[in-house]
Amino acid sequence: MKFSIAQTALLGALQTASKAVAVRTTKQVLTGILLQAEAERLIATAYDLELGIRVEIPADDTNLLNVQEAGAIVLPARYLIDVIRKLPTREISLSVSSNYMTEIRCGQVEFHLHGIDAAEFPHLPVFTTGRSLEVSSERIRELIQRTAFASATSEVRPILTGVHVERTSSGLVFTATDGLRLATHTVGSDEADDTQWQVNIPSKSLVELAKILPDSDTPVQVLVSESHSLFVTGNTHFYTRLIEGTYPDTARLIPTTHRTEVAVDADLLAGAVDRAALIARDRENHMVRLEIAGTSIQVSSSSPEVGNVTEQVEANRMEGDDLSIAFNARYVLEALRALDADEVILHFNGPNQPFTIRAAGTEQSLQLISPILWR
Amino acid sequence: MKFSIAQTALLGALQTASKAVAVRTTKQVLTGILLQAEAERLIATAYDLELGIRVEIPADDTNLLNVQEAGAIVLPARYLIDVIRKLPTREISLSVSSNYMTEIRCGQVEFHLHGIDAAEFPHLPVFTTGRSLEVSSERIRELIQRTAFASATSEVRPILTGVHVERTSSGLVFTATDGLRLATHTVGSDEADDTQWQVNIPSKSLVELAKILPDSDTPVQVLVSESHSLFVTGNTHFYTRLIEGTYPDTARLIPTTHRTEVAVDADLLAGAVDRAALIARDRENHMVRLEIAGTSIQVSSSSPEVGNVTEQVEANRMEGDDLSIAFNARYVLEALRALDADEVILHFNGPNQPFTIRAAGTEQSLQLISPILWR
Repeated sequence: MKFSIAQTALLGALQTASKAVAVRTTKQVLTGILLQAEAERLIATAYDLELGIRVEIPADDTNLLNVQEAGAIVLPARYLIDVIRKLPTREISLSVSSNYMTEIRCGQVEFHLHGIDAAEFPHLPVFTTGRSLEVSSERIRELIQRTAFASATSEVRPILTGVHVERTSSGLVFTATDGLRLATHTVGSDEADDTQWQVNIPSKSLVELAKILPDSDTPVQVLVSESHSLFVTGNTHFYTRLIEGTYPDTARLIPTTHRTEVAVDADLLAGAVDRAALIARDRENHMVRLEIAGTSIQVSSSSPEVGNVTEQVEANRMEGDDLSIAFNARYVLEALRALDADEVILHFNGPNQPFTIRAAGTEQSLQLISPILWR
Repeated sequence: MKFSIAQTALLGALQTASKAVAVRTTKQVLTGILLQAEAERLIATAYDLELGIRVEIPADDTNLLNVQEAGAIVLPARYLIDVIRKLPTREISLSVSSNYMTEIRCGQVEFHLHGIDAAEFPHLPVFTTGRSLEVSSERIRELIQRTAFASATSEVRPILTGVHVERTSSGLVFTATDGLRLATHTVGSDEADDTQWQVNIPSKSLVELAKILPDSDTPVQVLVSESHSLFVTGNTHFYTRLIEGTYPDTARLIPTTHRTEVAVDADLLAGAVDRAALIARDRENHMVRLEIAGTSIQVSSSSPEVGNVTEQVEANRMEGDDLSIAFNARYVLEALRALDADEVILHFNGPNQPFTIRAAGTEQSLQLISPILWR
């Protein structure tokens, strides 16, 4: 294998692929990045068997890619990326000699890195089924950012470490829950289609996907098989395994009625809960209290060792019963951040029932939080 | 105690003082910040018995300080700073009631924090001796940044964890060494004076001082007593204890002759050593080799597991014997960063003797590094 390429183009591809490099593994080949040089293109692939990222660089005038000899090699990601990053922004030439020893040249610099036989690198999953959907990168990122944080981090129930992804006739619904709170977000699709399917994608993988999705509003092709999902955008393929099992029936958890409705400025509420959380932060559950009497909301927290805080927030509108409820401040802060709204609508069904938070004027997103039964 | 003040003014003072708050201690009062309200001024003090910072806020039109009742209280730094930071940028009022319970009010927010009796807070050192010197903040920062990194981090020889500060008739000299490398920097003083003294100041404290010194070129009064040093700038007093003991006679370590002199672009040399360090980073001593033959410098490193690197750097000028030498890449990189020069002059006395690096055209700074005897 022998090719030359602009430093910036190679570095960009390696940095994107690096998110899928295995960190803790005894299989050395998984800590590497597979480079495949073919006529007119270079492919960089990392695959830790859960997450796989494949970036293709087609030869063009800006990346200066010139493949002199096709071939493939696996190079240790940790060294390769740092070496390429620290080279001058000039043309780099890379060639493999006997015993997988790889020479990287750039100006007066000459690195030799021990490579691994490309034949040892695992194959990425193959997609043959027809289950696919096109969604914009902006919408995919929105779906992830508004839901993935609510997944479980503990492996006690593996299915809850994933995000439930449901293709409905009208669009795509992401749902995540850790058992104490739930986040769900829906986006419409331009593709009219009666296809319906649902899969569970590891939350951690989706968070990585959100990082590498282009900022511009470009189309993303979503494909699913029995065991894997694939997101294709531009020259990047992003593979994740699916989590097996049946996702809990979360729809029945979401209350359809309410006894108290409060409309409040999201920043005012978040500010008050954030300050109350300061006092609550060393307590189990980060417990903060809300006392609603008409449009007057009192947010408070206390700790025997530290002290206490109370703050008055005026609601824009209130209907129904007065209420006193306690919750984990972190859950409410994360929910408000995910909703990213000017005004939010809270629905309560008494102090011991889960409550919901929505952005005013839209049903796209819902955040559900279990109260702390503190009395 | 009762006063009101602009949120930004109080937060600024607390953040400056916070560097001296004790982190690991069983004495709870040392984890707090002492607030003293007097007629027309507020003083915030933190003191972990090694480092002490005292910030005075005199009442003026921008800080809106208004002391209604003089008094003092110690509040837990960790909570106090976060509480003040998260309050709106408005006027804050603070008052102490019975049992040291302290009320902090800002708009609709009301915090109560448990305080500690101010009488329990330790007294800052008193300075009565006449040993003092005025130096600009820029020069103090320069003295610290060019030397302190070379101090020992291990407590095996406590004296080496400090910076040796020497007042000479012409100025101030800072010297630090960990036994394998040495950094020294000299600045002149405008005050003509025959006073001479020397003290050892903990390196960690000086690094904190460099962080809080004003960026503008303001005068700093340096005072030393038998046991402490004090840096006064504007409304901030910065106290450090001194390290007892006799600093090694470092002057005799610095070679006065050389067998090889090399002048080289500092960025070129740093880039090459930085790249070579990539290969060396998992090896003990981060060993990088330099081979000098005329004006041609070869920088190289190798590792049986990873691979190797060689790079050619052209010197601007070379006089004396050709040479092959090995060193810890980290020492050379830190020395070059500290010198902050366009061109550096290296002096060698053979492969087994310490070598020096200076900025071209000035004798103010010197970096001395022991080679690795790798042959």
